[in-house]
Amino acid sequence: MAVIPLGPGRLVAKVDMLVEGTDVPKGMTYREAARKAVAMCVSDFAAKGARPDSFLISLGLRKGVTQEEVEGLAQGLRDAEQEWDAHLVGGDTNESSELVIDCAMVGFARKLVTRVGASPGDRLVVTGLFGYTRAGLKILMEGASAEAKFAESAKGSVLHPTPNLRVGLALAPYLTSAMDSSDGLARSLHTLAKESGVGFEVIALPVGQGVERFARTNGLSTEQLVLEGGEEYIIVGTVKGSKFSSAAKAVKRAGGELIEIGMATSSKGRVELRVRGSYKPIRNEGWTHLR
Amino acid sequence: MAVIPLGPGRLVAKVDMLVEGTDVPKGMTYREAARKAVAMCVSDFAAKGARPDSFLISLGLRKGVTQEEVEGLAQGLRDAEQEWDAHLVGGDTNESSELVIDCAMVGFARKLVTRVGASPGDRLVVTGLFGYTRAGLKILMEGASAEAKFAESAKGSVLHPTPNLRVGLALAPYLTSAMDSSDGLARSLHTLAKESGVGFEVIALPVGQGVERFARTNGLSTEQLVLEGGEEYIIVGTVKGSKFSSAAKAVKRAGGELIEIGMATSSKGRVELRVRGSYKPIRNEGWTHLR
Repeated sequence: MAVIPLGPGRLVAKVDMLVEGTDVPKGMTYREAARKAVAMCVSDFAAKGARPDSFLISLGLRKGVTQEEVEGLAQGLRDAEQEWDAHLVGGDTNESSELVIDCAMVGFARKLVTRVGASPGDRLVVTGLFGYTRAGLKILMEGASAEAKFAESAKGSVLHPTPNLRVGLALAPYLTSAMDSSDGLARSLHTLAKESGVGFEVIALPVGQGVERFARTNGLSTEQLVLEGGEEYIIVGTVKGSKFSSAAKAVKRAGGELIEIGMATSSKGRVELRVRGSYKPIRNEGWTHLR
Repeated sequence: MAVIPLGPGRLVAKVDMLVEGTDVPKGMTYREAARKAVAMCVSDFAAKGARPDSFLISLGLRKGVTQEEVEGLAQGLRDAEQEWDAHLVGGDTNESSELVIDCAMVGFARKLVTRVGASPGDRLVVTGLFGYTRAGLKILMEGASAEAKFAESAKGSVLHPTPNLRVGLALAPYLTSAMDSSDGLARSLHTLAKESGVGFEVIALPVGQGVERFARTNGLSTEQLVLEGGEEYIIVGTVKGSKFSSAAKAVKRAGGELIEIGMATSSKGRVELRVRGSYKPIRNEGWTHLR
């Protein structure tokens, strides 16, 4: 049993389970899988403006697991500790038929950002560009072709997902609503719209560098890569227009970039993309990884 | 993400993972499995004198899981909430190749009982009788024969394990060291001995009612059933002789019984059973369930 020192603000906790068959793509090492299990929790903390303090890890290991794999898992957990300054304080190890890594994270938040606070007129913002993860999985799982440099960053986005905790903590005071994009941008927009009772008009898709070319080369849709990806661990949220400039500066000081992609409207639940003056609906779809 | 109100004392957390293949014996329903996953955490809280406040559940579900099974899991979690007055505040659901239930429990402790505080001369105590779980598994898994009434309570000890949280919280202030018997009585004694730097002399084995007869009928050893079981979720600990009577009264008020089975000695790491005036070593063995 772990004793966790109290931090400032309210006590928060969350769990996220990584399962080999659904969350570990071909090419991902055990070290990367362990780090990813923690990243999944960190991403939610970042989007909600909560600072992780400690985490506990329950492992399910296959019978024939090698020493090297176990050391990889341990190294991945150390990577996570250093990267997000959170402490592994406890855990449990078991035998299971595939690798299972459950992360339980505990932390503290002065003000918790929720999904329900967006109002019509709020600016719609994201903290990164989209399209890399779905492209990366296409490359890893289906051998899609890509230029070396793009392939590197697309695969990296899958194998080494990097929620930006500093950016999340800096941005939180300005957000009226937010969530992370773990189920893809489209799903995040629909969820925020539904929970806040607003609509969203997306004016500028946050297309990652090289995504359009990758889409063309492989006969894919850029919009789909950007909107229906997942596990980007980017923050999708809303800020008041009057706060946008301060929010952008705070994010910049934290080493990130706040990207405005549209605005909240009063059309409840309607999520649309403006293309050359007309509107088309954004489907509530995402890519369920590896299924 | 769950917000957890602060309680009195220090913040504590633990995780415990239940995996179908190793922790769910034949005859155990999904409802019982879900309740057991929480019981595994509660047991550790009880032995350490910590009060559970909240828990989060990560589920791994087989692809073909039925509506009825999912409802069973939900009912088992509600059973646990009511039984131990702890609140299910969050969770995560995934697909996996076998049922996995990971429980992350958060609570508060004024004084945390550890495994390192036993001194020579302390009384060795337990809060229940042993032998039922190993007998129960023999009945469930191997069809061992037993009288109906004994079979009922032995199977019940496996399918419906009942850590006594009230007894644990009442006893905690008197304990110099303790742990729960999740790995069996012998393993608990060896662990406490090693961590506290003492030995133990067991004078009276805490043999459950009907265990001797069950052993005889099935050609088994009573000592082994009692010492090398596991998952009894009984507290094994030490109290100062001068406090024994107060501790026993406190446990009685909480609805339990404090059973003295021996004493701590200065022979570091030596764990022995006194039988008719002579001593025999207690092996550091347990039964690894279902493996």
